[in-house]
Amino acid sequence: MIKIGLDAMGGDFAPEQTVLGAYAAVEKFDDIEISLYGIESEIQKFMKQPHDRIKIVHCEQVIPMDVKDPAMAIRKFKDSSMVRACKDAKTGDIDAVVSAGATGALIAAGTLVVKRLKEVERPALAPVMPTIKENKYTILCDAGATSDAKPQYLYQNAKIASIYAREVMNIENPTVALLNIGTEDGKGTDLQKEAFALIAADPTINFVGNMEGKTMIAGEVDIIVADGYSGNIALKSVEGTSKSLLSLIKEELMSSTRGKIGALLLKPAFARIKKRMDASEVGGGILLGVSAPVIKAHGSSDSIALMNAIRQARETVSKDVVAKISQALKAE
Amino acid sequence: MIKIGLDAMGGDFAPEQTVLGAYAAVEKFDDIEISLYGIESEIQKFMKQPHDRIKIVHCEQVIPMDVKDPAMAIRKFKDSSMVRACKDAKTGDIDAVVSAGATGALIAAGTLVVKRLKEVERPALAPVMPTIKENKYTILCDAGATSDAKPQYLYQNAKIASIYAREVMNIENPTVALLNIGTEDGKGTDLQKEAFALIAADPTINFVGNMEGKTMIAGEVDIIVADGYSGNIALKSVEGTSKSLLSLIKEELMSSTRGKIGALLLKPAFARIKKRMDASEVGGGILLGVSAPVIKAHGSSDSIALMNAIRQARETVSKDVVAKISQALKAE
Repeated sequence: MIKIGLDAMGGDFAPEQTVLGAYAAVEKFDDIEISLYGIESEIQKFMKQPHDRIKIVHCEQVIPMDVKDPAMAIRKFKDSSMVRACKDAKTGDIDAVVSAGATGALIAAGTLVVKRLKEVERPALAPVMPTIKENKYTILCDAGATSDAKPQYLYQNAKIASIYAREVMNIENPTVALLNIGTEDGKGTDLQKEAFALIAADPTINFVGNMEGKTMIAGEVDIIVADGYSGNIALKSVEGTSKSLLSLIKEELMSSTRGKIGALLLKPAFARIKKRMDASEVGGGILLGVSAPVIKAHGSSDSIALMNAIRQARETVSKDVVAKISQALKAE
Repeated sequence: MIKIGLDAMGGDFAPEQTVLGAYAAVEKFDDIEISLYGIESEIQKFMKQPHDRIKIVHCEQVIPMDVKDPAMAIRKFKDSSMVRACKDAKTGDIDAVVSAGATGALIAAGTLVVKRLKEVERPALAPVMPTIKENKYTILCDAGATSDAKPQYLYQNAKIASIYAREVMNIENPTVALLNIGTEDGKGTDLQKEAFALIAADPTINFVGNMEGKTMIAGEVDIIVADGYSGNIALKSVEGTSKSLLSLIKEELMSSTRGKIGALLLKPAFARIKKRMDASEVGGGILLGVSAPVIKAHGSSDSIALMNAIRQARETVSKDVVAKISQALKAE
């Protein structure tokens, strides 16, 4: 039985969608048990009937979605659903944590409570991004766990994301590109130049060289390696631009009768686009480099997105990704 | 008379569109003279009739659009249209340079040939980005001139972009935000933290704090300050996502009869969106911090875009922006 801890209070639609996501997941997978961490009375409102593979672990506190100082929050909210789940992942009471709570807090809890593997210099947040190619996804590693990066961190990001892509996403020989300001060799700051040399020298990494921000969602590679600072800037620029552009299109369409009729005709096409670009279809971002899988689901996750994040946690546990990362880095 | 040097050989559609752009500009503005730098025989093909305010400065070489090593190219292509124009801007024979040629080469030529103002620590490339708000543009400074940045550079970027926004874009008290991984104070690496403190302490800068990649094109501020590395990543992520998304929409629409009919109805709406998001309407990016205005027009510029870039050069010269930047930084 794979034991998954779900932060039932995390996310914009918690605990209703987290509880529904847990039910959907246990119905889909008969080899998982889910512990719902959170305020028992709140959780029970949405539990239609008891399930022998779902239990509640009552916690008194909830970390707010808009928490300002994540590291402080982890110390202050010791009895929160997020921190308690992370503690139990550290001790081995559960095998993985899934949370749609505040990203910064979950990175802090993953790092400070679940704790990094000793072979890993810094944990990295690795979301799976949709691309414009059908059924093609790209892992970004790191999207913001470690902003002050060193070349060695980027090298490890390339290595551990490759393991994750191989094991969980079933990509046999995942291609890795380094986010940079040009595609030629020798571009970027010292950080990128030195990271490039380290990654290129490792025959276990299928390195294809530098890539630019303009191909972030082009679906050309399996893994994009970045420092947490620029990875975060790139990811949010992509997300923000998609959102801004789609809202601009909607506004334009609604500004005329002609547009409204056209929009009606195009509803199925736009629904397909939305589905294709929807990150919730593929689960959440995984915090790689800590001693148990920690999955960050999107804050706006519904039950389907949470079910997919649970699926991702289950896969990561069953493929023993944490141990494989530890071994690969130990062998260096 | 304002003397503008146009790199007639720079850009994907040169020299036809550059020559047409020059004609459009002299017709529009009677206070400018244009020198067309490039291969005389090539240029003359597209000169319908002589114009007393357009002359040709023959150069033997052209810097290729896909040049790999910009600094090397500047030394190798001494008699290129781009380098010659920059030389003449340095000596004062012309007042400003406009080029749609290779970005890296133009930054190198601006820095090494036109040369930076002694008060400026590092030049910065400042494109004017369209936003989803109508008639609202945002200056990004730096978009890639200086990748290895120090806090002081970012502070100067805030200061010089404010002068440019005030003088050329007629924004009285331009708002400035610092590109970062979170909106709260204290976010980012040491570079952002120290730059934040410097910018916040200067009462001449209308600083509104940190902003994230997700609001790059939201049109919330007049100026976004960044180091050249992350500014470049953000800008290209925005451009690439817009392009990828619009091509995905097109593909989806063309995949069914229903979509094709809808697309036909929506043609005017999509044309408006395209126009609103079109950078060519506002000119090019300016290289700030060098001793004469150097305008980088988009590589795919047509004559209209080039005319707008020439307009921008004219404005920058007539408002004496270079001297104002020099004075403002001298006064520190």
